[in-house]
Amino acid sequence: MYNIAILGASGYTGAELIRLIAGHSYMNIKALGANSKAGQSMAEVFPHLRHLHLPDLVTIEDIDFSHIDLCFCALPHKTSQEVIAALPKDLKIVDLSADFRLRDPVDYEKWYGNPHAALEQQKEAVYGLTEFYRDEIKAARLVAGTGCNAATGQFAIRPLIERKVIDFDDIILDMKCAVSGAGRSLKENLLHAELSEGYHAYAIGGTHRHLGEFDQEFSAIAGRPVKVQFTPHLIPANRGILATCYVKGDPEEVFEALAATYRDEPFIEVIPFGQMPSTRHIRGSNFCHIGVSADRIEGRAIVTAALDNLTKGSSGQALQNANLMLNIDETEGLMMAPLFP
Amino acid sequence: MYNIAILGASGYTGAELIRLIAGHSYMNIKALGANSKAGQSMAEVFPHLRHLHLPDLVTIEDIDFSHIDLCFCALPHKTSQEVIAALPKDLKIVDLSADFRLRDPVDYEKWYGNPHAALEQQKEAVYGLTEFYRDEIKAARLVAGTGCNAATGQFAIRPLIERKVIDFDDIILDMKCAVSGAGRSLKENLLHAELSEGYHAYAIGGTHRHLGEFDQEFSAIAGRPVKVQFTPHLIPANRGILATCYVKGDPEEVFEALAATYRDEPFIEVIPFGQMPSTRHIRGSNFCHIGVSADRIEGRAIVTAALDNLTKGSSGQALQNANLMLNIDETEGLMMAPLFP
Amino acid sequence: MYNIAILGASGYTGAELIRLIAGHSYMNIKALGANSKAGQSMAEVFPHLRHLHLPDLVTIEDIDFSHIDLCFCALPHKTSQEVIAALPKDLKIVDLSADFRLRDPVDYEKWYGNPHAALEQQKEAVYGLTEFYRDEIKAARLVAGTGCNAATGQFAIRPLIERKVIDFDDIILDMKCAVSGAGRSLKENLLHAELSEGYHAYAIGGTHRHLGEFDQEFSAIAGRPVKVQFTPHLIPANRGILATCYVKGDPEEVFEALAATYRDEPFIEVIPFGQMPSTRHIRGSNFCHIGVSADRIEGRAIVTAALDNLTKGSSGQALQNANLMLNIDETEGLMMAPLFP
Amino acid sequence: MYNIAILGASGYTGAELIRLIAGHSYMNIKALGANSKAGQSMAEVFPHLRHLHLPDLVTIEDIDFSHIDLCFCALPHKTSQEVIAALPKDLKIVDLSADFRLRDPVDYEKWYGNPHAALEQQKEAVYGLTEFYRDEIKAARLVAGTGCNAATGQFAIRPLIERKVIDFDDIILDMKCAVSGAGRSLKENLLHAELSEGYHAYAIGGTHRHLGEFDQEFSAIAGRPVKVQFTPHLIPANRGILATCYVKGDPEEVFEALAATYRDEPFIEVIPFGQMPSTRHIRGSNFCHIGVSADRIEGRAIVTAALDNLTKGSSGQALQNANLMLNIDETEGLMMAPLFP
Repeated sequence: MYNIAILGASGYTGAELIRLIAGHSYMNIKALGANSKAGQSMAEVFPHLRHLHLPDLVTIEDIDFSHIDLCFCALPHKTSQEVIAALPKDLKIVDLSADFRLRDPVDYEKWYGNPHAALEQQKEAVYGLTEFYRDEIKAARLVAGTGCNAATGQFAIRPLIERKVIDFDDIILDMKCAVSGAGRSLKENLLHAELSEGYHAYAIGGTHRHLGEFDQEFSAIAGRPVKVQFTPHLIPANRGILATCYVKGDPEEVFEALAATYRDEPFIEVIPFGQMPSTRHIRGSNFCHIGVSADRIEGRAIVTAALDNLTKGSSGQALQNANLMLNIDETEGLMMAPLFP
Repeated sequence: MYNIAILGASGYTGAELIRLIAGHSYMNIKALGANSKAGQSMAEVFPHLRHLHLPDLVTIEDIDFSHIDLCFCALPHKTSQEVIAALPKDLKIVDLSADFRLRDPVDYEKWYGNPHAALEQQKEAVYGLTEFYRDEIKAARLVAGTGCNAATGQFAIRPLIERKVIDFDDIILDMKCAVSGAGRSLKENLLHAELSEGYHAYAIGGTHRHLGEFDQEFSAIAGRPVKVQFTPHLIPANRGILATCYVKGDPEEVFEALAATYRDEPFIEVIPFGQMPSTRHIRGSNFCHIGVSADRIEGRAIVTAALDNLTKGSSGQALQNANLMLNIDETEGLMMAPLFP
Repeated sequence: MYNIAILGASGYTGAELIRLIAGHSYMNIKALGANSKAGQSMAEVFPHLRHLHLPDLVTIEDIDFSHIDLCFCALPHKTSQEVIAALPKDLKIVDLSADFRLRDPVDYEKWYGNPHAALEQQKEAVYGLTEFYRDEIKAARLVAGTGCNAATGQFAIRPLIERKVIDFDDIILDMKCAVSGAGRSLKENLLHAELSEGYHAYAIGGTHRHLGEFDQEFSAIAGRPVKVQFTPHLIPANRGILATCYVKGDPEEVFEALAATYRDEPFIEVIPFGQMPSTRHIRGSNFCHIGVSADRIEGRAIVTAALDNLTKGSSGQALQNANLMLNIDETEGLMMAPLFP
Repeated sequence: MYNIAILGASGYTGAELIRLIAGHSYMNIKALGANSKAGQSMAEVFPHLRHLHLPDLVTIEDIDFSHIDLCFCALPHKTSQEVIAALPKDLKIVDLSADFRLRDPVDYEKWYGNPHAALEQQKEAVYGLTEFYRDEIKAARLVAGTGCNAATGQFAIRPLIERKVIDFDDIILDMKCAVSGAGRSLKENLLHAELSEGYHAYAIGGTHRHLGEFDQEFSAIAGRPVKVQFTPHLIPANRGILATCYVKGDPEEVFEALAATYRDEPFIEVIPFGQMPSTRHIRGSNFCHIGVSADRIEGRAIVTAALDNLTKGSSGQALQNANLMLNIDETEGLMMAPLFP
C-alpha cells in the first residue's frame, strides 16, 4: 500500500481524487490538507464522502510528509508553486494546477501574469497528458496535470498534427464546458439561478489560459508555431467538456489518424465514423469518446471529443499518472463505468 | 379587433402564439385547431393557459374561416402545405413550418425529401425574416416563418455578406440549441433523464435542413453561391439558441456592419464590442442580442448571437409579421422583458 | 403616470419589479437605488433589461424622493427598516422585506433576532396579502409584502381556518421551494454545481422565519393560537413554490371553502377536484393554482398550491398592492401568461 | 466466477445493473435479454457502456439458461411474472419488477389490476429489503426487489414501528422522486421541456402502488393494520428519492430507534441528530442517509431519508441480494462513493 496525501482537499478536484482513490487497491489516504477548512471532517465539507474513514482536514504545515509516498496538489495556481517549492525534494508529486504546465517561464508569466516562483521544480516537471508522455511520466518526480480544456482539445487534434493530415493554420476549437470546471468558488455567475437554463461564450477571442498549452504542445509537434482558435462556452450541466473541432483535411484520413493513435489506449474510444459522442456517456468516468464526421464542403472534417472535466480532464488523469509513477497498473481505480442517467 | 385562428395549437409554437396574443391589444383568438387533441380544452392540453378564456380545440375541418382575419399555421412541415393549399385563397396566413421557406421547389425536395404539394401558394410566399423583408411582408398574403437556427445565423451573418466585410468561403456557424426546438414529440433522446446534464452535436457535417435557408439567402445576397458550415448542438435548457460564428474579416468592420444594420431595429441589440450575449438574457422575449469579438489571430472575428427559439425564432417572429400584415404597430404584443432568472 | 422608485434594484425581486413595471401603462421608473452597485447601468447588472431605458443605479442617499409617488423597497430585512425610517413620512411605500410583516415587535425580535428599529412605521404597516387585506391596502401608506412561503401556505390554508373545515391542531405544510427565493447572495450551497441534480430539506422542525407570519395570521383568524408544521425543501429549479398541505377535514368541504373564497379572484385559480397544480404552469406569472384531493384515509385532505415566488410570492404581489394604493386597476401589468416550456 | 443473465437490459435498471456488475469481482455477464431491441449492441442502446465487452442483446427465448447461475429480471411488471413462470425452476432469480412483492394475490390484484399469473413462484418469493430479510434472502431462490419509494419509506419508518416509538395512525410520507424512477418510457410529461424547471405531486391521496408494500410490511410488524399517507412528487433531477416523514413520537426516541437499528449496516447511515440528508450526497451509490429532527411542536419528529432510486432503490439492492444468494460478500461491487458534483 502506498501512502497518499492530498493538498486542496476541500475543492472539487480534491473530492474527486478521494472518490477515485476510495476504490483503489493500493493507495491509502493518510493526510488531507485544506488550510481554509482545517479542523473540519470530510463529512462536513463533502457529506457524500461520509461513509469513508478519512483523516480530518489539516493545514499543509501540519502534514508530516516523511511517510507519504505520493502527494496530489489540488490547490489554486500560484499557491501551488509556492507550496510545492517547500515540499521535500524527493517527494513524488502530481500537481493539478496550472503552475507547471508551461515549460517556458516567459510563457507562464505571459498567460498567468506573475513571474514563476518555483523555477527549479518547473524544470523537472513533466507534462501530464498520459497518452503522449507515458514514459516521461513513469520516470518523473513531478507531473503537471493538464488543463481540462487542453486535454480535450489535444486528444482531438494532436494526432492530426503529428500525422500532418490537416491544415495547421485553420484549426478552430469550439468548446462546451460544464460548470464544475470553474471550481467551488463563490462567483455570482456560478449561482444556480444565474446559470441554469442559459449559456454563453466566455474568454472569447484567444484569451483563455489553456491556449498556452495548445501553443506549446501543437507547436512542438509541428516543429513550427501553430496557433488555434479556441472559444469556451459555459453550459448548464455539472460535468463534461465537449470539443467541436473544425479542421481542414480529408475526413477519412483524419479518422484514420485518430483510430490508429488510440487503438490500444484503455480510456480513449474513437467511435464509428459519422457518429458523435455526448458528455452524458462519459460522466463520472475516465473515458474520452471521439467522433469524426465529414462536412458537406469537401476537404473539411469535424472532430468532436467528450470527456469528464473532473475525471479524465483532471483527477482521473492525475490518478492515472500517479499509477505510472508508482509502477502500478495504469488503469487501477479508474475503470468504473460512466453514470447514466 | 382582428379575429385570429391558430392551427396546430397543441404544440409549443402554438402555445407560445397564444401566450403572446393574450397580451395583444388588437387580436382575438377565435379558433384553435389541433386534430389529434380536438375536443379538449386548452386547460387540459396546456394548463399554464387555463386562466385565458379560449375556445376548445377543434379539428381544422371544423373551423369556419369566413370570419377569420389571419391564420397562424403551427403544423408540422408537409402537413402544413396540404392544409394551406385547402384554405381560402384570400385568407392571410403566417406559416411557422418549413414548407414555404425555400423558393425553389427543387431545393425544397432536396432538403425535405418529398415533392412540394402546394406550388401555387409557394410562389406567393414571402420569406419571413422581418428585419430584411419588411416591405414584402406588409404586402404579403402568405408569409413563411424562418427556421429558428436560420434566423439566428442570418441575424449574425447577413449584414456581413451584404457589406462584404468577410470571406464568403470560410463561415462556420457553431450553434447551441435548447430542447424546445425539437417540439413536443415523443422521442427517447428528448426525455429528461436522457437529456439533462449532457450535450452533444447532431446533424453534423452539413445535413441540417436549415442549411437550405442559409444557402438560399446568403447566395442571393452575395450574388454567387455561398455555402456555410453549420453544426447544431443540443443543450440541456428549454429555450434559446446561441450561434457562435467564426468569420474571416476585420473585427471592427464586422462590428460596424452589424451596428449600422440594426441601429433602428426594436428587437435586435448589438451589444458593446468584446461583450458576449447569453441565452439567459433573452429568454421568453422577442429580443436578439449580438456580440462581436476579435480573435487573437489577425483578420478573424467571432460573432455570437442569442435569441429565444420559440419567440424571436418562431412565434414572436410570426406575430411580428402578422402585425405588419394587418397594419398594426410591429412591436404590439412583443415588448415584454425577458424572464430572468 | 406615476413616478416610481425601486430600492434594492440589483437583487432578483428588484429586477422582477422592473420586468413587470416595463409592461405597466401608468408607472414610470424614475430612480433605481442599489448602494453596492451605484454608478452601474442596469445593462451591466441585469443584461436582460438592457433594452429598457432605465436610470443608472444610484445610492439611496442620492435619490430625490420629492417627485416620487410610490417607492418599492426590495432591500434585505433589517436594512429595510432603517432605510424606511428615514424616508419621507408621506411617501407611499411597498416593502418587500420581512421587516413590517409581524405586528408585534416581540414576535419580530423572536424570529429575526434584533429589536425593531422603526416602531413608528411598523404600527401603520398593513400586511400585504392582497386577497385578504384589500381594503386596508387601498388605504395604506406602508404595505409589508408577505414572505413567499407565507403567501403560498396562506392561500391554501386561510379559507379552511376561516370556515372551520379542518382540525386546527394538525396542519402540515411540506413546501418545495425554487432557488431564486434565496436571492442573489454568494453562498456555496447555491452554486449550480452544488445544487442542480439534488434536493434536501432545510430549516426543518419549525425554525423557518415565515412561521412567524403563519402563527400571526392563522391565530388571528382562528381566535386562538394555531401552530402549523412547516418544512421547506430546496429544489433544483429557479422559480416556484409548491406547498403540499396535509389537513384533517372533509375533502369536499375543503374544496368548497377554497372554491368559494377565490371564485372572483383574478389571480387565484382553484383547479378541478382531484387535479394537482404544477409550478411549471405558473412560472413567470402572478397566478396561483390550488388543487384539492381526498386521501384514502377518511377525513383527510391534501391541498397543493403553486405560485412563482418572485412574482405572486413577492414582486407581483407588491405591484398588485401598489396598484391598489394608487387607485389603479389591480391587475394592471400583471396579466401576462406563464412561460412554458 | 458466476455467470449472470440480465433480462430487460435496455431499460435504466438494466443498465444500472451492468454498470455495477462491471466492477464486480465474481460476476460475469453472459446474456443480455431485451426483446424490443434484440440484435443491437449495448454500444447502440447505452453508449456509456461501450467500453465494456458485453454480449449483444437477444430475445429472452434465445438465452440458454443452463450455464447461468443467477438471472436478474428488470422487466416491466406483468411481463415479469409471465417470463419468470417459464424460466427453469432451479434458476436463482432476482426480480426488480413489482410482481412478487405482495404476498397476498388479492392484494396484488387490487393494486395492479390483473390476476397474478405465476402463483407458484409468488409463494416462494422473498421480499428483498435486504437489511430486514437478510436470512431469508440468503436461502431464497427468487427474491422480489422492493419498490424504490417503498424502500425509502421503510428505511425511515420500519424501526419506529418495530420499536413502537411513534403513533401508528398518523404517519405521513411526503416523497420527492427524481425522473429516472419513471423509466425510459416515452411519455409527454417526461420530456425535458415539460419536466425541467417545474415540479408537482402525482398519485396523490393514497393511489400509488407502492402503498401495497407499505401496508403489507408495516401491518405485519405492527401486528395490526397500519395505513400511511404517501404523496410522491416528481422533481426535475435524474436520480434520487427524498422522503420527508412526519411522525408523532419523541424525537430522541425516534433517533435512537434508527441509530440502533442501523448501527452495523454498511449502507445505511444515520447522520447526526438535527442534520438533514440530501439526494446529491448519495447519487450513484448504494448508500441511504437518514436524518431526524424535532419539530417545534412537542411530540412530533421529522425523519428524512435519501437514496438513489436506481441504485439502493433498485439495481444496487438487487445486486446486494444476489451477493447474499451466491454467498458472496454482501458489499461486493457496491462500495463506490457517490458522484458529486
